[in-house]
Amino acid sequence: MHPALSDHARPKRAVFFISDSTGITAETLGNALLANFPGFRFERHTIPFIDTAEAATAVVQTITAADAAGLAPIVFSTMKNAAVGRVLDTAPAPRIDLLGGHLTELEQTLGTTASEQLGQFHTVGDTEAYFARMRAVEYAIEHDDGQSSRALEFADVIIIAPSRCGKTPTTMYLALQYGLLVANYPLTDEDFPTDGLPRLVAPYADRCYGLTTTPLRLSQVRHERRPDSRYASLAQCTLELRRAEELYRRTRVPFLNSSTKSVEEMSAIILQTLKLRA
Amino acid sequence: MHPALSDHARPKRAVFFISDSTGITAETLGNALLANFPGFRFERHTIPFIDTAEAATAVVQTITAADAAGLAPIVFSTMKNAAVGRVLDTAPAPRIDLLGGHLTELEQTLGTTASEQLGQFHTVGDTEAYFARMRAVEYAIEHDDGQSSRALEFADVIIIAPSRCGKTPTTMYLALQYGLLVANYPLTDEDFPTDGLPRLVAPYADRCYGLTTTPLRLSQVRHERRPDSRYASLAQCTLELRRAEELYRRTRVPFLNSSTKSVEEMSAIILQTLKLRA
Repeated sequence: MHPALSDHARPKRAVFFISDSTGITAETLGNALLANFPGFRFERHTIPFIDTAEAATAVVQTITAADAAGLAPIVFSTMKNAAVGRVLDTAPAPRIDLLGGHLTELEQTLGTTASEQLGQFHTVGDTEAYFARMRAVEYAIEHDDGQSSRALEFADVIIIAPSRCGKTPTTMYLALQYGLLVANYPLTDEDFPTDGLPRLVAPYADRCYGLTTTPLRLSQVRHERRPDSRYASLAQCTLELRRAEELYRRTRVPFLNSSTKSVEEMSAIILQTLKLRA
Repeated sequence: MHPALSDHARPKRAVFFISDSTGITAETLGNALLANFPGFRFERHTIPFIDTAEAATAVVQTITAADAAGLAPIVFSTMKNAAVGRVLDTAPAPRIDLLGGHLTELEQTLGTTASEQLGQFHTVGDTEAYFARMRAVEYAIEHDDGQSSRALEFADVIIIAPSRCGKTPTTMYLALQYGLLVANYPLTDEDFPTDGLPRLVAPYADRCYGLTTTPLRLSQVRHERRPDSRYASLAQCTLELRRAEELYRRTRVPFLNSSTKSVEEMSAIILQTLKLRA
């Protein structure tokens, strides 16, 4: 496919992410695979909770309609029940089974048969894990932007950075995905006359993690919030980031540049650096 | 494996989730597969950001050490670069390649070769998507627990429920995973003398979604926050949930029971019901 081809000339195909659960994994892995084919345009549909043959039959009709419309459908599926998966194979579309084949591989490796009843993507009804997550999200809200010092000694991570470097989304992701207690603290002009970390977080230096970004990007993000302010000016952003990075280095706080990273990547790096992986 | 076998008698195997990116997908899919084998004990390790042959060689040593310790390792991998993946095959462990085989299937389906450069799990540096996520998380924090009515007309979803039914984690998940603007509003005793929805959210009834749970579980969660209070008593929880469910039915607000569902499942159901899927 020639990259200069206009968007409308590129073939458009219908893609179905079909799951007996939420569809999140089918979507994530399917999209990662599709990203390798930039020459195509895809029309994506996620269809979750397909856990009976009847539900699968209805999906087959949807896929058939897409085929009739000339969209040459492709199916990605994560179905734990092989019989339900096989219903999808009656649709006029190749199916990429993201789960079934690997289950067979794992059966061979472990020398035993999979127990159909127990395959759950997410631990449903696991009360302890649910409580941990709820507590973590509430802790993150309470400790967003240095709002509270209550129970700060229990923080697993304290993210520090100048305003608008990406502290909040990363905090929430760590709380939700890993159930960690995460606080974040904004570095302001007041934090810079001194040599050390801000007074509030200084006792927990070993749990601090810094963020930085590029001045241009920071200025862009700050203009969104306060257009044409000193706060958003390139000069001010350059100064704050330079001071923050100097502070991280001086206090030996590990840090990363958020400008080229997704929230998932930043979270994974923080976990790894602070050795918070199980 | 006999289920009555004591935990210590069950074989323990080392499982490695290895990725050139965050490892989240390898972990999620790998754990979904392992959940089908309840007769085994697994010692899980996630090793992200393995994107060079050198890094993979170091991982092979870690796997070899686990093998020497008698833990009969298993590897799950999501590597976009096949050559890096092949380095892992020199380890004394079967590798379940969650990506490579499917890439070949997709190449056959599309009749073209994958472009190695472009396979990214998460859209790195996608400024617009990043802004949307940041705005969504900030909106969710601002609108948690009915704290603000500012810009409530822009909410994609308003989750309503009595205190401690799981509004906050679900709100955050929808904001982070899908970039949706989500508010949540607590139903209190004051909301029940009237027939309709609370005044603040009534104009947006079509975007409201209700949560309920079981009285026993609600009482358990509330005891965590305020032990032995009227608020946490089974009688009070039963009453509040009955009133909330009556309100949802009367006002035709769709609702679900959070007691047996994960945050991911609730989010997927809400998306589907309110037709918020792309």
